Amino acid sequence: MKNYKIALLAGDGIGPEVMKEAVKVLKLVEQRNKDVSFELNDVLFGAAAYFATGKSFPEETIKACDEADAILKGTIGLSHEESKKIPVDEQPERGALLPLRRRYNTYANFRPVYLPKALSHFSPLKQEVIGEGIDIMIIRELVGGLYFGHKEVGVNEDGKRYVREVLEYDEDQIRQIIVVGFEVAQKRKKVLHNIHKSNVLKSSVLWNEIVDEVAVDFPDVEVKNILVDAAATYLCLNPAQFDVMVMENMFGDILSDQGGGILGSLGLMPSACKGPEKSYYEPSHGSAPDIAGKGIANPYSMIGSVALMLEMSFGMEQEAKNLWAAMQSVFAAGFSTPDLSKDSEATLISTEKFGDMVCAAL
Amino acid sequence: MKNYKIALLAGDGIGPEVMKEAVKVLKLVEQRNKDVSFELNDVLFGAAAYFATGKSFPEETIKACDEADAILKGTIGLSHEESKKIPVDEQPERGALLPLRRRYNTYANFRPVYLPKALSHFSPLKQEVIGEGIDIMIIRELVGGLYFGHKEVGVNEDGKRYVREVLEYDEDQIRQIIVVGFEVAQKRKKVLHNIHKSNVLKSSVLWNEIVDEVAVDFPDVEVKNILVDAAATYLCLNPAQFDVMVMENMFGDILSDQGGGILGSLGLMPSACKGPEKSYYEPSHGSAPDIAGKGIANPYSMIGSVALMLEMSFGMEQEAKNLWAAMQSVFAAGFSTPDLSKDSEATLISTEKFGDMVCAAL
Ligand SMILES: CC(C)[C@H](C(=O)O)[C@@H](O)C(=O)O
Ligand SMILES: CC(C)[C@H](C(=O)O)[C@@H](O)C(=O)O
Repeated sequence: MKNYKIALLAGDGIGPEVMKEAVKVLKLVEQRNKDVSFELNDVLFGAAAYFATGKSFPEETIKACDEADAILKGTIGLSHEESKKIPVDEQPERGALLPLRRRYNTYANFRPVYLPKALSHFSPLKQEVIGEGIDIMIIRELVGGLYFGHKEVGVNEDGKRYVREVLEYDEDQIRQIIVVGFEVAQKRKKVLHNIHKSNVLKSSVLWNEIVDEVAVDFPDVEVKNILVDAAATYLCLNPAQFDVMVMENMFGDILSDQGGGILGSLGLMPSACKGPEKSYYEPSHGSAPDIAGKGIANPYSMIGSVALMLEMSFGMEQEAKNLWAAMQSVFAAGFSTPDLSKDSEATLISTEKFGDMVCAAL
Repeated sequence: MKNYKIALLAGDGIGPEVMKEAVKVLKLVEQRNKDVSFELNDVLFGAAAYFATGKSFPEETIKACDEADAILKGTIGLSHEESKKIPVDEQPERGALLPLRRRYNTYANFRPVYLPKALSHFSPLKQEVIGEGIDIMIIRELVGGLYFGHKEVGVNEDGKRYVREVLEYDEDQIRQIIVVGFEVAQKRKKVLHNIHKSNVLKSSVLWNEIVDEVAVDFPDVEVKNILVDAAATYLCLNPAQFDVMVMENMFGDILSDQGGGILGSLGLMPSACKGPEKSYYEPSHGSAPDIAGKGIANPYSMIGSVALMLEMSFGMEQEAKNLWAAMQSVFAAGFSTPDLSKDSEATLISTEKFGDMVCAAL
């Protein structure tokens, strides 16, 4: 009998609603697998935590995460205006999310940009562009670059406000994520798209050097180097040319959200953030304050994050597969939530009902 | 009689081919306008210049640009492999393009992402997503940020290679581009999308402060703040929501190329780079070494850059309008070049023929 401790960080906005469905699924998986039990620990995180405790990543939450085998996170963040009520350094992204990533050194962020052909009506792209469906794995470096470099804000000699922030990488940081890229490519189509901007950034020059070095250990993987701007063009024009894409933090932030765009919604993109000892899982979308509490947010990305957790942290591959299949079957049967399908012909159901149907299909 | 000096920097790859068509158009415009003459000065730039002179932005070219009233640039750059034959700091982007931008302080880059409904077949987006056509003006800061910040490459105490590069802005640099954004928005739909990443970057925090300050002078313009990642999602999902978008250098690099993606090709995106005294004009696409010399590259983006030059540097607004109309009429009549229209029903014509037809329509 295996007992896994999971810290649940529901967060802000639609976080609690979609988390509820994820928990429903987890309990069902537990019930079905007599040799596994999940110990769930619900803790505050993000703006919700800040307003309750004065800290957006409070001690109690840190403790729960430290003790957990895996962390399941909902969404964080407030609207642009609401954010201003929280001091800049305690705002949920800077005060909670980035510290979470740093604490567990979750350097490898996996963002599957996946849309089976049967769901291609969700995509804004033409059917002939999508072809047989979209199936890309974006691998984003998650604990380096501009996000974590030194930042300086001040007033210069001429009395002008200025800001300086540093994009930093060393070869080990780069190598560890590149290796992940090659490993994943090796298990898939043996083609790795390396995303860079070496014609301007010196960080990309070093990055590409390391790619060349690591490539020697993966002779069966073909590397395709592509500039980040060109990648943004081709993700729209011909996503089928990509299989595994590896890139640094900020590029990954932008291109993976573009990935959500070509799927039709970030609501279709779960994600895994893997560290050397512990990983956490989260939907790629934000907290969507505008639709929070309405019961219309799709929990696919949240439940998909559960599937990634089952597979990557607990080695429950078959259960993960079943879960993906169950989620897709709900869409395939013509059901969807209002956030995803404004003008489509889908039968609209609530967040909760979507979770119920996934459980039923499972 | 006005005499304008124009420096022509054809550059590398498809640069010379598309430049030839631009020159054809310029000569026709000159012939038609008895009170205007153009003095064209053809000079080397980019890899072509490096191989001929050892410098990618040689003295003679600098002189021609200094003396010119406006600069028309083609494309620069070699393939990833070919680039390695040139020392990193003389590679065309670092050795020629960035110095050109810095020399003339061309801080405001205008990238029209424009596709009339009649040309929506070029776009990878579904007709219902495009709606009445795409018409966005991306305004990108072009001489600051990571592109021009201090860069440090070395080996640290542990013997590891590292790199550090600085994203720098001061309030004046930010203000001047934000003002451009507001001015353009005021002339269009009075809505300005401000693209930022203030939940992570301190540079965006300062940027947004300045936006709030400048907004006071433009009470008739509505500001919509949107995170760069969300903007990447929505450029795919619903481009019609955007009219004028303003952003810093690197964000602009990526999002404007995504803009080319939703149009169907960067070949459909000309651009203007405006400095306080002098401006230069260039297609947004690269030098496409793979199709160079084949006569299949579309010169729209290059000729469109001529239109922008006529309007912005020479105040020839009517001529610019006629030129846009002429170019679009060629597409509308069902003609296109092979690079743009691989599997479409267009009648395929060469780069040269496209230029001829534009001239005929003019
Ligand atoms: C919320 C924000 C800090 C975060 C990021 O930029 O990494 C988000 O956009 C993401 O992609 O996970
Ligand atoms: C060639 C390169 C340096 C340039 C840039 O990054 O600015 C190009 O991509 C562009 O967008 O004009």
